[in-house]
Amino acid sequence: MTATPIDLLLTNGLVVTMNTEQTIHHQGAVAIHQDVIIEVGEADTLANKYLATKTIDCRGCVISPGLINTHTHVPMTLLRGLSDDLRLDVWLYGFMMPVEREFVKPEFCYTGTLLACAEMIRSGVTTFCDMYYYEDHVAQAAAKAGMRAICAQTILKFPAPDAISYDESLDYCRTFIKKWKGHPLIEPAVGPHAPYTATPDMLRACVGIATEYDVPLHIHIAETEPEQQNSKDIYGLTVVPWLEQYGLFEAKVIAAHCVCLEETELNTLKQTNAGVAHCPTSNLKLASGVAPVYEMLKLGINVGIGTDGTASNNDLDMVEEVRLAALLQKGTFIDPTLLPARQAWELATIGGARALHLDALIGSLEPGKRADVIVIDMAAIHHTPHFRHSADTIFSQLVYATKSSDVRDAIINGQILMENHQLLTINEVDLTHKATQISQKIDTFLANREGDLMSKLLAVSSGVIPIETYEVQAKVRIDEVGQMEERLNQEGITIDRSSIRNQYDTYLCFDQAELGRIRYREDEILNKDGSPKDVFYQISLIGPTVKRFFDNTILLTRARYSVSANRSCRFYREYFKPDKDIQVEKYRKRYHITYKNTQFAVNLDTLSNGAKGTYLEIKSRTWSARDAEQKAVLIGELLELFGTEKENQVLEEYLHLV
Amino acid sequence: MTATPIDLLLTNGLVVTMNTEQTIHHQGAVAIHQDVIIEVGEADTLANKYLATKTIDCRGCVISPGLINTHTHVPMTLLRGLSDDLRLDVWLYGFMMPVEREFVKPEFCYTGTLLACAEMIRSGVTTFCDMYYYEDHVAQAAAKAGMRAICAQTILKFPAPDAISYDESLDYCRTFIKKWKGHPLIEPAVGPHAPYTATPDMLRACVGIATEYDVPLHIHIAETEPEQQNSKDIYGLTVVPWLEQYGLFEAKVIAAHCVCLEETELNTLKQTNAGVAHCPTSNLKLASGVAPVYEMLKLGINVGIGTDGTASNNDLDMVEEVRLAALLQKGTFIDPTLLPARQAWELATIGGARALHLDALIGSLEPGKRADVIVIDMAAIHHTPHFRHSADTIFSQLVYATKSSDVRDAIINGQILMENHQLLTINEVDLTHKATQISQKIDTFLANREGDLMSKLLAVSSGVIPIETYEVQAKVRIDEVGQMEERLNQEGITIDRSSIRNQYDTYLCFDQAELGRIRYREDEILNKDGSPKDVFYQISLIGPTVKRFFDNTILLTRARYSVSANRSCRFYREYFKPDKDIQVEKYRKRYHITYKNTQFAVNLDTLSNGAKGTYLEIKSRTWSARDAEQKAVLIGELLELFGTEKENQVLEEYLHLV
Repeated sequence: MTATPIDLLLTNGLVVTMNTEQTIHHQGAVAIHQDVIIEVGEADTLANKYLATKTIDCRGCVISPGLINTHTHVPMTLLRGLSDDLRLDVWLYGFMMPVEREFVKPEFCYTGTLLACAEMIRSGVTTFCDMYYYEDHVAQAAAKAGMRAICAQTILKFPAPDAISYDESLDYCRTFIKKWKGHPLIEPAVGPHAPYTATPDMLRACVGIATEYDVPLHIHIAETEPEQQNSKDIYGLTVVPWLEQYGLFEAKVIAAHCVCLEETELNTLKQTNAGVAHCPTSNLKLASGVAPVYEMLKLGINVGIGTDGTASNNDLDMVEEVRLAALLQKGTFIDPTLLPARQAWELATIGGARALHLDALIGSLEPGKRADVIVIDMAAIHHTPHFRHSADTIFSQLVYATKSSDVRDAIINGQILMENHQLLTINEVDLTHKATQISQKIDTFLANREGDLMSKLLAVSSGVIPIETYEVQAKVRIDEVGQMEERLNQEGITIDRSSIRNQYDTYLCFDQAELGRIRYREDEILNKDGSPKDVFYQISLIGPTVKRFFDNTILLTRARYSVSANRSCRFYREYFKPDKDIQVEKYRKRYHITYKNTQFAVNLDTLSNGAKGTYLEIKSRTWSARDAEQKAVLIGELLELFGTEKENQVLEEYLHLV
Repeated sequence: MTATPIDLLLTNGLVVTMNTEQTIHHQGAVAIHQDVIIEVGEADTLANKYLATKTIDCRGCVISPGLINTHTHVPMTLLRGLSDDLRLDVWLYGFMMPVEREFVKPEFCYTGTLLACAEMIRSGVTTFCDMYYYEDHVAQAAAKAGMRAICAQTILKFPAPDAISYDESLDYCRTFIKKWKGHPLIEPAVGPHAPYTATPDMLRACVGIATEYDVPLHIHIAETEPEQQNSKDIYGLTVVPWLEQYGLFEAKVIAAHCVCLEETELNTLKQTNAGVAHCPTSNLKLASGVAPVYEMLKLGINVGIGTDGTASNNDLDMVEEVRLAALLQKGTFIDPTLLPARQAWELATIGGARALHLDALIGSLEPGKRADVIVIDMAAIHHTPHFRHSADTIFSQLVYATKSSDVRDAIINGQILMENHQLLTINEVDLTHKATQISQKIDTFLANREGDLMSKLLAVSSGVIPIETYEVQAKVRIDEVGQMEERLNQEGITIDRSSIRNQYDTYLCFDQAELGRIRYREDEILNKDGSPKDVFYQISLIGPTVKRFFDNTILLTRARYSVSANRSCRFYREYFKPDKDIQVEKYRKRYHITYKNTQFAVNLDTLSNGAKGTYLEIKSRTWSARDAEQKAVLIGELLELFGTEKENQVLEEYLHLV
């Protein structure tokens, strides 16, 4: 009998096939020709049967199907560790979105993808499922690296870095799918981002594309409890039935996260054969919780494991992710037998393939499947010793003791991408150089912004309004408000209008005084009977102040910018990270008066926290320094008309009295 | 000015000092002479000031205090991955304890410790806090490797691998402490294992030793909820106040785990300055839960991080442990700002030092402290890119992106233990060889046991009783029990005694019939009125059966062993891992009768699950084949006396009727 010529033989390794019988060959081999696995079996048998152009000796190694990363955003690898340990809104609206707005371009996506591929190949990943912008460039880079990928073009209901409307994204997506459909490595897909960033129309269009071209539909589902709560509040439905209305599950769905699903929703996933991408690190890091994977598996749902993007991880290490998945189920649902090592490795390989609807092609080492294979070196000290008294021990070793640095060789679609820890399709030196250039630009962008409250404020607001530069003011401690109100009714003073309100101010202050400070104001307008009428939230940047004492009054010169605050005080506090914050609460009777043809605001303030007390304030603002000086004189006159005492004058602002 | 001669200069690295001000030197250096840090500062300054015998260039690296592993059992490294994904009792009583009983000897502890040191040095650990047996050999190996260690000798109320009583352990401990006290690297300590394995006397003696010699006391506290519940049930007190009664917190306590403490207990830890060793991987893997570290830190408790032993981890990778600690608090307590990266790195260094009561000596890079320093290479692709726009980003990188394989150099007490990934004090090749020899012996021990139900049963029982080899029996389906009872009252038959009982049998069956099977029986003896009187649990190994049909009766030949079952059915099921289990429930009226001077058991059984029905069984057992045949004849006669029909005879055992 003559030996059959083949391209590649991996031999003398412990082969973990992950086939249905979970066959293990302790001294095994895998025969590969072109892009396909020809045979898997005992090393001796295959050595006699095949004549390989190239043979890789896998002594002391495990030969496994490549790992499948079922959910990630690869270009974001360029944003690794940009900003961490923040609440989702601060992280997203304060850092990710401003940076993405500025930096995400086709070249960014290409470079970020190559970088991600380098890291993933090193950690044993052979297939990944992506969702990002400019997905055509993601696909180009993945194909260049030689990785297998599902590339889902993100569709959002609001403008994205690569589209000003979702119509544009849908058009892009169609063109993208037509271009890549049928590629040996790349499967294009449609990626409506999430229920809360979608409209019914948009979802229907996405399902249309997915079914017309028979491509997967990748979406985030039920990542957090608030997402479910909002859906119930707005639509009276949890997210899965809400999505189901628009035919979503007619597509080959790949649902990322699924942390907070009800049992009926899980049943829908099962019945519609939707795949779930479980992302344990990301779900912990962003404080979403832990998905009940053991329950999904009990129901027979196809679950895979994903790293999510590096911005919420901060790496693409699938070996780490598999271990964490196995550990978390046990510790969270208090049962050490949940998600045992063997099953965890299954999720990372054939399970992931099922979740991606690719199990006919990849996920196990079986004849006829694509040759996506990794070789893991078990010689390191952290693998010493190991046991073989039961078939489970090899999985214990793979899941609980293996590190990504143990992955020695990686073959995808029959092509060797890494041999003995050397990448063969990616130049890491060039790539590191390019990535560093980008990160330095982002660093500069953020550093400039960080050093400048105005830029930070602009980054999270839709334009701010500058306020008059000069402020003339006088403040006097008074005994009672009523007396002063009487004195307003005298000749020469006209009351134009008045209001009463509670004002809750939070000043965010910085040790570096030259930065200025931020004021968050909750302005509660009251009816005459004291009941609430309306409330306004305002955020202001108040620049460093130059103070001049001018007779009885103070003349302040400073930059002031103000905008309606559309986020909570908590948000701004965590976002601006002040060194100190100060609260001032007051009950204010405000009179707008005219005196000698000049308008002034007269505030009768009762402070209720910190430095309590009752105050008369007379204020005026202007863009002109000369005008300011004239008004200062008039304020001096008003103070006399009101009969205030000079020794009761207060030169400090309220926040300094607290 | 002339340069001062020193032994070692680490230079050009990003120095993370972890001092009180958390000073960072972006282009920094650490000057070391003998075992002490002389100065930490800017690279340029130190280069001019010192003339070093050896200089290590740390370009592109972070220089950090070494990591402190606050809780482990280093010799158990030899049991890595021995058996996983099991419930605690199955794991402990089924695997760990039988193997420890057989294999834990002084040499085992020495080799295991060296192996652990090799792995820990590679993952950046410079100090560990241990608790195991033969701690003198642990200390010897740690000193040989050059690692800093607190070595706590385990004290248990029951026999241990190194002592038959706790008096012996206490004596050993005293001698051990006197031998090592004052060693530059080793701090001996006393280790009462846990509240539930201690007696008040034992605890008092341990505190006595700890205070007399001024050494730490290392103990497991509140690892699981059942531990707390049991303590409340038995003593009416949770574990901390129970321990406090015996003066435990007068010692310098290092408390491992602390997963389930009440607020008052946390306050006690704070007030007594006890350190906590948080072991996130172990607590997840054994399904204990997640310790509320953020709450401990809010109270000002000194918390460090520990890997626990490899048997519940399965590695000693502190870098992984720090990341998991940071992630878990957020995901479990649903707040992404909990345990930010900077604080996590603090727990791994100076925080750990405080928890071990060693912060005057180690934990930060400051002049006068011992030179325990690691150098982490940040060049790998998983560190690309990184950001420097805020002081937090370096901690993000250390905690969320670093892998233990990035640790390049390790210096402990001024001695270089690893340089450029090469260990200098440990021969890994020899060590791997020795460890493999041991693991192979354990594999053989377990494989033999696994293939043999008898060995497995013996491993978790204190001796089993063999039962007569031959069993003669006949079984007949009957219509009603009363009629048969009447027929017992006839001439020639004497009723010696009788009983009524409910029997709940679980048969653990294996596809490999030659293994035999295991029967777990709950035998509930009833009073005449049917109320429960007593209950017995019995576990039996029933060997493969040779069946002979003998006239109307069946003659069974088989090995049978029985022992009182001291664990739950659930335990045995998970431990023996049967391919199938079958339940048989019956209400049994049992008569012990004498017929022709021969004793028989007559059972009138009413089955209540699976194959329901009412049966008459006549049985006898003997050690003799000839005797068995004679009894078979007599049983035939009895069947006729009872007037049973031949066609009602049942040849199968009850479990085959279900």
